Amino acid sequence: MNILTNGGVTTPKGFLAGTAYADIKGNNAGKADVALLYSEQPCAAAGVFTQNKFSAAPVHWSKEVIADGRAQAVVVNSGNANAGTGDQGYRDSAQMAALAAEHLGLDRHDVLVASTGVIGVPLPMERMRTGIAASKPTAGGSQDFAVAIMTTDTVPKFGAVEVQLPDGTVGHIGGSCKGVGMIHPDMATMLGFLTTDFAVEPQFLQQALKAAADRSFNMVTVDGDTSTNDTLLLLANGAGGNPPITRGSDAAATFQDALDELCVYLCKKIARDGEGATKLIEAEVRGALTLSDARVAARTIASSPLVKTAVYGNDPNWGRLLAAAGRSGAELDPTKVDAFIGDICLMKAGQPQAYDHALAVTTMKQETVHLRLHLHLGDAHATAWGCDLTEEYVHINADYTT
Amino acid sequence: MNILTNGGVTTPKGFLAGTAYADIKGNNAGKADVALLYSEQPCAAAGVFTQNKFSAAPVHWSKEVIADGRAQAVVVNSGNANAGTGDQGYRDSAQMAALAAEHLGLDRHDVLVASTGVIGVPLPMERMRTGIAASKPTAGGSQDFAVAIMTTDTVPKFGAVEVQLPDGTVGHIGGSCKGVGMIHPDMATMLGFLTTDFAVEPQFLQQALKAAADRSFNMVTVDGDTSTNDTLLLLANGAGGNPPITRGSDAAATFQDALDELCVYLCKKIARDGEGATKLIEAEVRGALTLSDARVAARTIASSPLVKTAVYGNDPNWGRLLAAAGRSGAELDPTKVDAFIGDICLMKAGQPQAYDHALAVTTMKQETVHLRLHLHLGDAHATAWGCDLTEEYVHINADYTT
Repeated sequence: MNILTNGGVTTPKGFLAGTAYADIKGNNAGKADVALLYSEQPCAAAGVFTQNKFSAAPVHWSKEVIADGRAQAVVVNSGNANAGTGDQGYRDSAQMAALAAEHLGLDRHDVLVASTGVIGVPLPMERMRTGIAASKPTAGGSQDFAVAIMTTDTVPKFGAVEVQLPDGTVGHIGGSCKGVGMIHPDMATMLGFLTTDFAVEPQFLQQALKAAADRSFNMVTVDGDTSTNDTLLLLANGAGGNPPITRGSDAAATFQDALDELCVYLCKKIARDGEGATKLIEAEVRGALTLSDARVAARTIASSPLVKTAVYGNDPNWGRLLAAAGRSGAELDPTKVDAFIGDICLMKAGQPQAYDHALAVTTMKQETVHLRLHLHLGDAHATAWGCDLTEEYVHINADYTT
Repeated sequence: MNILTNGGVTTPKGFLAGTAYADIKGNNAGKADVALLYSEQPCAAAGVFTQNKFSAAPVHWSKEVIADGRAQAVVVNSGNANAGTGDQGYRDSAQMAALAAEHLGLDRHDVLVASTGVIGVPLPMERMRTGIAASKPTAGGSQDFAVAIMTTDTVPKFGAVEVQLPDGTVGHIGGSCKGVGMIHPDMATMLGFLTTDFAVEPQFLQQALKAAADRSFNMVTVDGDTSTNDTLLLLANGAGGNPPITRGSDAAATFQDALDELCVYLCKKIARDGEGATKLIEAEVRGALTLSDARVAARTIASSPLVKTAVYGNDPNWGRLLAAAGRSGAELDPTKVDAFIGDICLMKAGQPQAYDHALAVTTMKQETVHLRLHLHLGDAHATAWGCDLTEEYVHINADYTT
């Protein structure tokens, strides 16, 4: 399966996207900050949402909308998270849905809402009204959509895959996401929007989305902070005319593989664009006793400030890998562990190895730095993605609202 | 109880400390890097050690020494952690103890060992031998001891308290600690050495030390990385001549209060001296359902990169407090929570409050920034200490070994 790197949420048939600039943050940023994603036909819909107990108003709204497994549109804004906004926040999310529904000729209970940006400031609803009214969804709107949902992202993030089901039906899955800070597993760690023109049975759609998120977006970490607004949505409109894909079928396996691949592609874009990042960290743990152990160890390595600064400094300080794995809670036996940076073995069965320091430094200067532990306790493995920690991360986050 | 700010590990009677420069790191740093702490009499001894599964060789050695509740000396080096050093590491820790024992006329099984510095490099044992031989313990050695154990610390950390027991006996507890990075709860988050000239029954000594650590050193966080070497030791030599303090006695309560106060004093010094830090963060959670909830919420707030950068930028971005508490795992009801920066109420019962933004910024420019949540669910409360996250943290950690 090849990623269509110019594809996005409107690559699958029957999906349209439109955007507008409404100055939601009130700082004359000039970048589009309101976006609509619309399907010409009603869709099966699935969602995965933040586990943060201070989940934001749009999360509450969207969970209600998606409860019946159906939706037809999404309205998104950047610049304001509508989080920590009390009762008014929920009324504003409902109103966003109503404005988009009116504009698109839908019922507001078929409109999902997502917001991202500063916390604790009420949404400017008059600007929102103007922005939604000015958004004209088109079949070529993928990349504008990807730009409109950005906050401190430096690049828009989009992609698609073409998929042939075992019965010969050809269709697409498209996607777009944003997120560069406040990113950590549990859950989707950002806003992500996925579309497909396959028909998919709603319960399998939800299961497939959760499984894909656990292999991708839930394995991305930028700074360990789980947002109040994390949302990943998947709409399936059936425009391709296939019989609905159901759990356990051959088509389900093909669909899951394609969805996983697209999600990993998109989530690596998030890690690589982490606030202030210069490199992508790929932390792999093999030979773990359980999948849960492999996942927590990989995520702890990828999120350790000391690992992240060592990667930034091209410093093959493998002790920091071990220290991170050791505090992760994963089962491990220090006398069995092998550690690698790229292909260079630094520790074998718990004993430090002689290695070429200059080569290790060179390996760490690559755009993607592979860190790997083999625990030699079992067969489970997992990969987590993160980024280096730089002065620029501090600059960005020390000056966000003031 | 007043802190004796010039006191330290040799303030209690019968304790001597000596140091030497042995160039353990091999970079001609010039600062003393080997230290001996010695009691003229055998001591009851207690210890709390890192929970990291890659615990270092000196931790293994010291746990064995302390198993019988007795010890008489500690040998410490900075510049090299003797961690990730395989079997050789354990032999080197045993050898450090033997060298110190020979120098002091003790059995090596009465000598505790602690090491701090770079991971994965074998200890330079010839330099260690020279350094230990050159260390001359004296009763005035407190402050030199505090300097010798420093790594990237910018200030030595020491203090003592004078305590009068209910029976009129007057004695002292003294202490010194180091640690500015790789610091996070569970456990002692650094090296700490405490001494007292009270006689204390060994089982109560261990219990008192664990309780004090849970209120102080285990509530300090700099970067979320738990070290492989964290060690907190307490030696009680009984030079004051009191009947041994036992669990449940009035004297035990007095001793515990004094020990807690000294430990909190020392641990705040660690947080304030966090790598690159410009400010101390004091994160308080009140009204939690359980003590465990209060502790985890307070520590998550104090360790959130987004909270830490907001404090650095004097940015009253209270949404980041809520987001951190919300992901901490602590039980909370968003509609009940009050949030404060200093005395300024920013959220009440989940509703954002109007507040004086300029005053909030001024409050955040203080050297200590108090952040407080009231969960209104129960009576439990806890305080955690941390520091802001600055560009300097990145500089320090990107260039540590190279």
